[in-house]
Amino acid sequence: MSQTNVKTDRHLLGLKHLGQEEIVGILNRAAHWEQAGKVTPLLEGKFVANMFFENSTRTRFSFEVAEKRLGAQVLNFAAAASSVEKGESIYDTVRTLESMGIDAGVIRMKPIGLLAELADKIKVPLINAGDGNNEHPTQALLDLYTMRKTFGEIKGLTVSIVGDILHSRVARSNLWGLQKLGAKVQFCAPDNMQAPELAEYANYVSMDEALQADVVMMLRVQLERHDKGFIRSAEEYREHYGLTVERAGMMKPHAIIMHPAPVNRGVEIDDELVECERSKIFTQMSNGVPIRMAVIERALA
Amino acid sequence: MSQTNVKTDRHLLGLKHLGQEEIVGILNRAAHWEQAGKVTPLLEGKFVANMFFENSTRTRFSFEVAEKRLGAQVLNFAAAASSVEKGESIYDTVRTLESMGIDAGVIRMKPIGLLAELADKIKVPLINAGDGNNEHPTQALLDLYTMRKTFGEIKGLTVSIVGDILHSRVARSNLWGLQKLGAKVQFCAPDNMQAPELAEYANYVSMDEALQADVVMMLRVQLERHDKGFIRSAEEYREHYGLTVERAGMMKPHAIIMHPAPVNRGVEIDDELVECERSKIFTQMSNGVPIRMAVIERALA
Amino acid sequence: MSQTNVKTDRHLLGLKHLGQEEIVGILNRAAHWEQAGKVTPLLEGKFVANMFFENSTRTRFSFEVAEKRLGAQVLNFAAAASSVEKGESIYDTVRTLESMGIDAGVIRMKPIGLLAELADKIKVPLINAGDGNNEHPTQALLDLYTMRKTFGEIKGLTVSIVGDILHSRVARSNLWGLQKLGAKVQFCAPDNMQAPELAEYANYVSMDEALQADVVMMLRVQLERHDKGFIRSAEEYREHYGLTVERAGMMKPHAIIMHPAPVNRGVEIDDELVECERSKIFTQMSNGVPIRMAVIERALA
Repeated sequence: MSQTNVKTDRHLLGLKHLGQEEIVGILNRAAHWEQAGKVTPLLEGKFVANMFFENSTRTRFSFEVAEKRLGAQVLNFAAAASSVEKGESIYDTVRTLESMGIDAGVIRMKPIGLLAELADKIKVPLINAGDGNNEHPTQALLDLYTMRKTFGEIKGLTVSIVGDILHSRVARSNLWGLQKLGAKVQFCAPDNMQAPELAEYANYVSMDEALQADVVMMLRVQLERHDKGFIRSAEEYREHYGLTVERAGMMKPHAIIMHPAPVNRGVEIDDELVECERSKIFTQMSNGVPIRMAVIERALA
Repeated sequence: MSQTNVKTDRHLLGLKHLGQEEIVGILNRAAHWEQAGKVTPLLEGKFVANMFFENSTRTRFSFEVAEKRLGAQVLNFAAAASSVEKGESIYDTVRTLESMGIDAGVIRMKPIGLLAELADKIKVPLINAGDGNNEHPTQALLDLYTMRKTFGEIKGLTVSIVGDILHSRVARSNLWGLQKLGAKVQFCAPDNMQAPELAEYANYVSMDEALQADVVMMLRVQLERHDKGFIRSAEEYREHYGLTVERAGMMKPHAIIMHPAPVNRGVEIDDELVECERSKIFTQMSNGVPIRMAVIERALA
Repeated sequence: MSQTNVKTDRHLLGLKHLGQEEIVGILNRAAHWEQAGKVTPLLEGKFVANMFFENSTRTRFSFEVAEKRLGAQVLNFAAAASSVEKGESIYDTVRTLESMGIDAGVIRMKPIGLLAELADKIKVPLINAGDGNNEHPTQALLDLYTMRKTFGEIKGLTVSIVGDILHSRVARSNLWGLQKLGAKVQFCAPDNMQAPELAEYANYVSMDEALQADVVMMLRVQLERHDKGFIRSAEEYREHYGLTVERAGMMKPHAIIMHPAPVNRGVEIDDELVECERSKIFTQMSNGVPIRMAVIERALA
C-alpha cells in the first residue's frame, strides 16, 4: 500500500478482519456519544459524503444524523439521481468526490469485493454501509451495542439468526462480530436460504431450537429473490420460519427479539411483536446513531 | 393520551380544531419572524425531519428555509427515494426517524385520518404539510397572514374560493381558519367539484357573485381527476370558472387575487394575472416562510 | 433593465460577454480560495439554491461544496423530484425560490436563451451551471485555472478541443474564455459533430494536428445523439477520434490531457490515460471548488 494512502485503521470495511479490541473500542465510544449532547463541533469544517449506490432510507438517515451531530458538513449522493445513470462507474464517482475535498465517505453498493479495491485507491477513509451480501459492519456494531446494553456482556450469549442467511450481510457481520466477542451464533433457515460457505462457522438449528437463544434475530425476507422450492408464499414462510406471537411465547423470559428493519409485518415477524416488550427493534435504530458517530469519529478525529 | 406523548398544543394537525387565539398567536409570531434577521440560533442542535410521502417542491423548500433560518438541522425524506418502495409503512418510517432522535417532523401524505393516529403514537411534535383532501394548515395560515397584512384585519372580509373544492385541503383549511377569524367564505365550483359535506359551512355562488368578494382565491384544477361531466377540457374550464383578464376587470378596486400555486397558467387563471398588481400569489409564497418559522417555533421552542 | 434588478456583474451567464479582466479576477480569487481553510463564515446566513432542471452529480456537488465552504445555507432542487413533473415552468420555480428569500441561484437546464430572460426578471444573481449547448462558464473557468496553474500563463497556448463540438457547451465556453486570454483554439471533430456557427472562431484540424497542441481537451461523446453517418460505433469513434495510448505517445512532452468528465473510458479516451501523469482530469475537478467559491463570492459578497 502506498504511503499516501489512508491508514487502514481509519476505514471500516467489515468486522471479519477487525480486531476484538477495535470493536470494543467502538462500542465504548458509542456509549460516550449516547450520553453526549446533541451536536458537538468536533468535525466542524469536515465534509462527509454519503454515497449510496443502493437505496436505504434508514441507514442513510442514521449516518446523516450521526455526521451532523458531530458537526460535519454532509453531502448526500444517491445513485438514482446521479451520474451512474450516465454509466459512470462507482470508482469515478468516489474519485470525483475525493477530488472535491471530502474528508470521509460512507458507501453502500451492490458489488462485492469492490470496496477493498476502492479503499486501496482512495485517500480518504471509507465506511461500509452495506456491500452486497458481504458485510454491513455498522449494523452489526449497533446490534452488538444493543446486546451488550441489555445483557451487560456479550460473552456467553447464544444468538439465533433466522431467515435469509444466504443474502444477508447483516448475518455475516453479526457472525464475525459476535464470535470475536465470545457469543455463540446459530442460524435457522430453509435450505434455499442457507449459506454453504458459512457452515463451518455456525450450525443450522430448527426453529424450536432457535427460539431457546438469548437473542432471536429475525432477518427481512424477500421471497422474490428465491426459487419457490419448499416455501411458496409469505404465509408458508410465516408458518415455518416466522416469529409468531405463539412462538415468541416459547422464548426464555429474559430473551430479546431483534431485527435490522425494515420489517415485513406478518411475514418474518408478527405485527404485535414489533413493539412488544422484548423487542429491541426501535432501540436498535436509536443505537445506530451513537455507533455511527463512533465510527465516523474513528475515521476522522 | 399517554403521559409520554407530546403536548397536543405542539402538533399542528389542522385548523378545524385550533382555537382562534392560537391562530392569531401564530400570525403575530410570523410578523415577528418576517422582520427578523435571516438566521437565528434558536433551534441550534435540534433536528427537524421533512417527511414527504407525497411530492411537493414548494412546500418542502418553504419548510426547509424556515427550519434553517431558525438554526435547526434538517433531514429531508422523500418517498420516491425511500423505504416506502420496499413497502415499509408510513408509521414505521416516522417511528424510525423518531428513534434516531428527531425533535419534530413535518409530514405530507395522501391518507386521510392517519395523521391523528400518528400524533397519538409518536412522541415528537408533528406538523401537517398536507394530508389528502383533509387539511393543509400552514397554507391556510399563510393565506390568513397575507389577507391580514393586506386589509389590516380579517373580520368582515368576504372570501370566494373557486375551483376544485372537492379535492382541496387548501379550501378546507382556509374555511376553518377564515370562519374562526370572522370572515365570510363562499365557494364557486362546477357540480362535480363541490364537496357535499361542506355545504352547511359555506354557500356555493355563481362566478359573477364570486368576483364581488374582497379576496378571490383560485384553486389549482386537475381535470384528470374528474369525470368529464359538464367540463370537458381546460378551455371549457377557463371559459366557465377561470379567472380571465376580463373577469378580473369586474373585481372590486381593492380586491385581491390569491392562489396556493403551482398555477396552471391559462386554465384556472390567465397568464397575465399571475403577477398583476392585485395578485398576491408570490407574496403568499414569501409569507409562507415566516408562518412556518412560527409553527416550528411553537412545536419546539 | 429595471432599477430593482440585480447588477449584471453579479450574474454569471457565460464567458462570451464577460470581460478579460473579470475572468482574470475570478481566477485570482480562486487561487486565494484554493489556499484558504476549508470553511469560512463569509456567507453565513445567506441561502443559495442549486436548481438543476437537468441532472448532474459532479457539477451539483462541486457547487454544494463551494457554497458550504463559504458558510452558506444550501437548498438543492432537482427537477426529477419536483414540481416540473406537474408542468410548472422553470420560471415559476425560480420565482418561487426567489420569493422564499434565496440570495443567489445556481441553475442548469436544457433550454437555450431562457437564462438571459430569467436574469432580467429575477432579482437575485444567477449562475449558469450549464444551459443546453450554449455555455458552461464555471467549467471553462476551472479549465482556464488548471491551464494557468500548469503553464504559468494562458497567452500563447494552443488548445485542441476534440469531439462533439456541436452539442458541447464546454467547447463554447472554453472557446470564448481562451481567446480572451490569448490562447489559440482549434477543434477536431467528425463532420456531424462540427458546429458551423463556430467556424469563424476556430479551425477544424486533423487528429494528428490536434495532438500537437499544448492542451488536448477531449469531450464526452454520446453517440446516441448523432446520425450514424461516418461513425457507427464506439469502436469506430475511438479508432478515429479517441485519445488512445498510442496517440497520447505522440503528444509533446509538456502537453497535458483534459476532459470535463464524466469520461467514457475506452471511447473518447483510453482507460489507462485517465489518471496518467499528463492527465489533469481529477485536478480539474479539484479546481472546480475554488473556482465556484470565487463565482459565488462575486455574486454575493
